[in-house]
Amino acid sequence: MAHEFKYFEDFEIGDIEIEKTASRTITESDMVFHSMHSGDWMPHHNDEEWCKTQPFKTRIAHGNLSFCVGTGLIVMASDMNPNVMSYGYDKLRYPHPVIPGDTLTASVKVIDKKDHPKRKTHGLMTHGETVTNQKGEVVCYAEHVFYTLRRTPLD
Amino acid sequence: MAHEFKYFEDFEIGDIEIEKTASRTITESDMVFHSMHSGDWMPHHNDEEWCKTQPFKTRIAHGNLSFCVGTGLIVMASDMNPNVMSYGYDKLRYPHPVIPGDTLTASVKVIDKKDHPKRKTHGLMTHGETVTNQKGEVVCYAEHVFYTLRRTPLD
Amino acid sequence: MAHEFKYFEDFEIGDIEIEKTASRTITESDMVFHSMHSGDWMPHHNDEEWCKTQPFKTRIAHGNLSFCVGTGLIVMASDMNPNVMSYGYDKLRYPHPVIPGDTLTASVKVIDKKDHPKRKTHGLMTHGETVTNQKGEVVCYAEHVFYTLRRTPLD
Amino acid sequence: MAHEFKYFEDFEIGDIEIEKTASRTITESDMVFHSMHSGDWMPHHNDEEWCKTQPFKTRIAHGNLSFCVGTGLIVMASDMNPNVMSYGYDKLRYPHPVIPGDTLTASVKVIDKKDHPKRKTHGLMTHGETVTNQKGEVVCYAEHVFYTLRRTPLD
Amino acid sequence: MAHEFKYFEDFEIGDIEIEKTASRTITESDMVFHSMHSGDWMPHHNDEEWCKTQPFKTRIAHGNLSFCVGTGLIVMASDMNPNVMSYGYDKLRYPHPVIPGDTLTASVKVIDKKDHPKRKTHGLMTHGETVTNQKGEVVCYAEHVFYTLRRTPLD
Amino acid sequence: MAHEFKYFEDFEIGDIEIEKTASRTITESDMVFHSMHSGDWMPHHNDEEWCKTQPFKTRIAHGNLSFCVGTGLIVMASDMNPNVMSYGYDKLRYPHPVIPGDTLTASVKVIDKKDHPKRKTHGLMTHGETVTNQKGEVVCYAEHVFYTLRRTPLD
Repeated sequence: MAHEFKYFEDFEIGDIEIEKTASRTITESDMVFHSMHSGDWMPHHNDEEWCKTQPFKTRIAHGNLSFCVGTGLIVMASDMNPNVMSYGYDKLRYPHPVIPGDTLTASVKVIDKKDHPKRKTHGLMTHGETVTNQKGEVVCYAEHVFYTLRRTPLD
Repeated sequence: MAHEFKYFEDFEIGDIEIEKTASRTITESDMVFHSMHSGDWMPHHNDEEWCKTQPFKTRIAHGNLSFCVGTGLIVMASDMNPNVMSYGYDKLRYPHPVIPGDTLTASVKVIDKKDHPKRKTHGLMTHGETVTNQKGEVVCYAEHVFYTLRRTPLD
Repeated sequence: MAHEFKYFEDFEIGDIEIEKTASRTITESDMVFHSMHSGDWMPHHNDEEWCKTQPFKTRIAHGNLSFCVGTGLIVMASDMNPNVMSYGYDKLRYPHPVIPGDTLTASVKVIDKKDHPKRKTHGLMTHGETVTNQKGEVVCYAEHVFYTLRRTPLD
Repeated sequence: MAHEFKYFEDFEIGDIEIEKTASRTITESDMVFHSMHSGDWMPHHNDEEWCKTQPFKTRIAHGNLSFCVGTGLIVMASDMNPNVMSYGYDKLRYPHPVIPGDTLTASVKVIDKKDHPKRKTHGLMTHGETVTNQKGEVVCYAEHVFYTLRRTPLD
Repeated sequence: MAHEFKYFEDFEIGDIEIEKTASRTITESDMVFHSMHSGDWMPHHNDEEWCKTQPFKTRIAHGNLSFCVGTGLIVMASDMNPNVMSYGYDKLRYPHPVIPGDTLTASVKVIDKKDHPKRKTHGLMTHGETVTNQKGEVVCYAEHVFYTLRRTPLD
Repeated sequence: MAHEFKYFEDFEIGDIEIEKTASRTITESDMVFHSMHSGDWMPHHNDEEWCKTQPFKTRIAHGNLSFCVGTGLIVMASDMNPNVMSYGYDKLRYPHPVIPGDTLTASVKVIDKKDHPKRKTHGLMTHGETVTNQKGEVVCYAEHVFYTLRRTPLD
């Protein structure tokens, strides 16, 4: 993995960190694998007969699947920056369902920067991570906060 | 899956929805499966030599793994309530790392209720989902918002 | 996992223990997983060209797949009863083949009770486990014997 | 897969069909994979903390795992005989638990032959399938009944 | 696994070691597994939208998938010969792409024998391993060299 | 996936294309997964009891596992170059065994260039792909030939 050493000061709100990752077509296998891995066998994802009676008509992927796959696409498109560490997510939404055959692509933009409540050596920098399908519909949106080293600590 | 039909009015802030799910011991396999499934092969999870040089000393699980496994544990401990639909998460944190051999358990509590900004038929009800390890340390905390049918619509 | 503490005396022949578990649609992935996991790559499950020449015309799932999936559906619909322990199966049949797209559901009924040949503290209680597809055809039937604690030992 | 064409008349009670299959060491991965595939996340197989409080002290494999792996070992050691078709199992027992590191081997012996209740063209021939660990302890025993073509139909 | 003990002297160039293994139908699952296992998520295998713009029009399997599956088919059709040890491959080609639904079969022929450059106790014997699809098109061809014990060492 | 458009003329013998990919620690899970995926359950990889009697003393990974993982590490460290297409491998060797806990890293160097026997628009350019473990021992070496577009066709 290539390394980059960007500091808190190097990120600007509005920066496009990744315009477009590689894309991945979601398959029925991915859905089964996600159910298996998580243990989440909710009928929305695994019971075709019940799904036929629902507005969405067929099995839809777990929101978390889009989240995990989107995360992987972003990781594969990123260099490793030892100056940042994941702090958590402030928002996670699944605006549009995913079905087998949908092809997902992610993009990343800097959407927020703020001081860390306690540490002067680090700031909190937020990535807006958007995962879209082949029609451009957003299937997952996450606000990913990073604990980020400052080049120059606050005093 | 058993069904229950609780309405927005039936949830009270502070209610313990699930006190303790079943528990699941995380294995090295789960970590490899998560890397495989997501495509996230970050060295923190998969490069033991590099990890030895880091403060955490050994490979640690993906935060998303704790999130997905915690979600599965909760689903397996829940009845299906057709009156609620996942709206997203307002906060997601991984306060403590997970390593193979850790045993995770989840609990769920109602932590918030508010009107839906537009719909009079539904409210937004939030679950605080906490995943702890065998020592009681919190490894994942998620605020899961549900779009929830009201028994009686607002007027 | 919730617990229940039913004793041998609490089970009656004819009792419906589980009327209907959740359902799970079997996919081609499940069939491939089962071949991979077991190492059973018989042409009935994995060689479409050969299957075309057979009465069943296409790849059919392993009987053991229906058995394992049925067992999982039952486990997910059950509370854990520390008073019972699996003793084995007295009959296992696969009356109808399963193909991808079939949706399986299980039910459980008490079909037999008898003294344990040696132990006065336990009896043998048998569940009839039936797995059906979306048309109601039985795809797996198992007689599952449980070594079950008596509230009051025989004297 | 090589073919053989043995008929009902060719099997003798007491025949050793397979003396010793290849062996397979069971791993923690196999156990996780079996839980994932079946959806059976019972604490006996997946909750190390709870298992420590039990007589068996550590996570033990699903009985069905030994059954599926044993079946695969037998299939890999067999030629395909188009004259036999699985009819089901008349007994299935798991006398000894399996833990990661155990190495399983199977053997097969003809233990019963009888007329089919209705068909004169076929008989019912039963294999005793025994799966043992590296110490020779039996971990799975199955009586596998085959619907078997007669060279000469009964009249 | 059955054993055979053929020596270097027992192999003749032109010998058909395996005429036809069992066959295996490749599925979309196999393709996803291979991407997951290897970490090779190239768009040729996983991005349907991009593939539509390419000459091959749809996702095609990794060449290495055909190689691995072909190897497995050969292993399952072989007895174990402790006198041979894999030395490597001298050629590996993927002349024809594989898509889900293709059914692969392998065959093995002795294509070369030569002295080992240093050891008098062993020779180098080469298998031509051919994997074909259901139309007879070659999808993988490998020249597999084996370090092979001589019955009588050279002097 | 980022794109680069290097032509045949842009590659020089001796060029280091990738000095060091990310690293991946091989686990027992990876070995089980490779057996499952390929169907290659040779005792060298899966029978610990037999392995104890062999010079290598414990289960060793499939050579093809190192090859597939090495390929994935290279793909993840590469931009996509639409001007090159895999033509096959001219040599594949597994000089050193891999056991769980080994950490693999790959590197890529241009080792050969030659005219295509028939096409004037393309040349054949060969990558030497080396996969090493944490001690620097080579566990897989492959000569990967690419059919590569010339900027200026030969006349």
